[in-house]
Amino acid sequence: MPCPYSLCPLSPNIMQLSKIGEFGLIKNIRTRCKNSSPDILTGIGDDAAAVKTIRGKGLFTSDILIEGTHFDLSLTTFYQLGWKFLAINISDIFAMGGRPDYFIAGLGIPSACRSRDIDELYSGILDIARKFNVKIIGGDTCSSERGLVLSGTLIGSGKKIITRSTARPGDGIFVTKTLGDSAMGLELLKKGGKKVQSFSNFTPRLKLIKRHLMPEPALIRNTSRITSMIDTSDGLFLDLGHICDESHIGALIYSDDVPVSPALAAEAKTAGKDPLEFALKGGEDYALLFTAPKNIRTRAFRIGEMIERGLYIIDSDGKKKPFKAEGYEHFKK
Amino acid sequence: MPCPYSLCPLSPNIMQLSKIGEFGLIKNIRTRCKNSSPDILTGIGDDAAAVKTIRGKGLFTSDILIEGTHFDLSLTTFYQLGWKFLAINISDIFAMGGRPDYFIAGLGIPSACRSRDIDELYSGILDIARKFNVKIIGGDTCSSERGLVLSGTLIGSGKKIITRSTARPGDGIFVTKTLGDSAMGLELLKKGGKKVQSFSNFTPRLKLIKRHLMPEPALIRNTSRITSMIDTSDGLFLDLGHICDESHIGALIYSDDVPVSPALAAEAKTAGKDPLEFALKGGEDYALLFTAPKNIRTRAFRIGEMIERGLYIIDSDGKKKPFKAEGYEHFKK
Repeated sequence: MPCPYSLCPLSPNIMQLSKIGEFGLIKNIRTRCKNSSPDILTGIGDDAAAVKTIRGKGLFTSDILIEGTHFDLSLTTFYQLGWKFLAINISDIFAMGGRPDYFIAGLGIPSACRSRDIDELYSGILDIARKFNVKIIGGDTCSSERGLVLSGTLIGSGKKIITRSTARPGDGIFVTKTLGDSAMGLELLKKGGKKVQSFSNFTPRLKLIKRHLMPEPALIRNTSRITSMIDTSDGLFLDLGHICDESHIGALIYSDDVPVSPALAAEAKTAGKDPLEFALKGGEDYALLFTAPKNIRTRAFRIGEMIERGLYIIDSDGKKKPFKAEGYEHFKK
Repeated sequence: MPCPYSLCPLSPNIMQLSKIGEFGLIKNIRTRCKNSSPDILTGIGDDAAAVKTIRGKGLFTSDILIEGTHFDLSLTTFYQLGWKFLAINISDIFAMGGRPDYFIAGLGIPSACRSRDIDELYSGILDIARKFNVKIIGGDTCSSERGLVLSGTLIGSGKKIITRSTARPGDGIFVTKTLGDSAMGLELLKKGGKKVQSFSNFTPRLKLIKRHLMPEPALIRNTSRITSMIDTSDGLFLDLGHICDESHIGALIYSDDVPVSPALAAEAKTAGKDPLEFALKGGEDYALLFTAPKNIRTRAFRIGEMIERGLYIIDSDGKKKPFKAEGYEHFKK
């Protein structure tokens, strides 16, 4: 059996996943599953896999949500969970420049769930499906003795597939919406300690919480000049790090240009925290982070530029500091 | 919110999933997710979803395996689990008359897992992938606080898609291999109380256990005269019941014609049990169960015929008895 962990300094026999982390693990899996087939345009390691078809390009993305790891049923309604379940998959397809077509929803359901709960979950899935013209075509349901498990696969299609690996030095770095809202929303939600049943009374605080519970996938219609793209699920530093890794170049961010919502600024002030920390490292915003020539016409925020090597941020005093591609990563401790 | 549970006698508010069972749940989900789009050839409720593409027909199937529900890590190696994980998805594509192309493997990994375990799991996935020419194109890895979760989506393609809904009265009922081996294998495995590390010493008993741990998907190359098909994952009675349900007709089985392996017969005798019980109700054989004109040339076993209505079995004394479409079903108690 060939060892796929040749990238790692330790023998696989004693390696704990906490040492290599999620992205180390993905790297290893990718090394083993390398495909040389010409029909596979992008495989493991991007937002979605892309496969050539005569019709165009097929896109496939998959996400698992596990109770206790990804969500807490005391803090989310089933409707909100269903919405988010499909939303994060749609975001992956948008991040490849594609359009979402078909969704396959797999559910592992614990005995404590009532059929009404699953009904509500499907209401959330169906509402966002309608909004983005996605059709639910199948799935798997089974019982689970380990809490609720949601596993979704979204099939999309596209003409021009945009990967993470094609950014060029000199490109501008853009982001489609304010960052850090979702991380602050999660903090507020945990502090409140209970579900939010309705967002009709739309206070700034509820807006932040909604960004966490019911993210709205970001779509860019004209992608002709975009050179690379990813959605911000793990936080700006880490997701930008993915683009740099895959494109083998570096990045420079201007912290003053990183968009922060008034709601996040206000809540951070109240809590005595730096809103920028949320914007740079907070996950699950599901904004699109892309690179393109600096002069393109776009409503997105330009936050920096791609450089030959290294990861740097220029703070509000004009000081240039290196940063690490860190954010939320599974397994790492 | 429209109530999707109109088929059920009770209000959804008080309905427990244990009352409606897995197939009741699927029926409800299907009612809600009804697609009227002409590009969807089969949606929820078959072995795989089929979607029209200019290239031909795209097939999509998804399966979740949850520790504690679907597998027990004290009774299976990671290698065997990886094999089975992809095998059951391949079986679903074969059951639609398609060929498997691309696999997306999602893993929810508990902290107790070592990287070597995941390596072994991938060895199992990759070995069966090579055998059936499947390419691994992507997936999702995340940590799980609730045990190991495997979620796979297999993408296939086919020219003639064979559903469960097109059997006709008068068709013969065929099955591609002996039934009940897997259920007996599981019983032997549980009785042994430990993993089987190697199948090189290939005793009849180990053969049964292997049918459970590392099922071999069954493939029929010439499907031109087949009228309906399913793979036997829930047991003959239940899976044949699915064909009858979807085709709105009945079935008659001759118990003497149901193929039982010598190994199962011997083990059942030792245990003082009826091997036919295993063959009729035991799950996870992953044989193909299909209907076709009675006179077709095939190496498959003919076990009965489709009739206008009702489910009947003729026992070895020639007595005709009704049977229920029962076997393994999630949620039901």
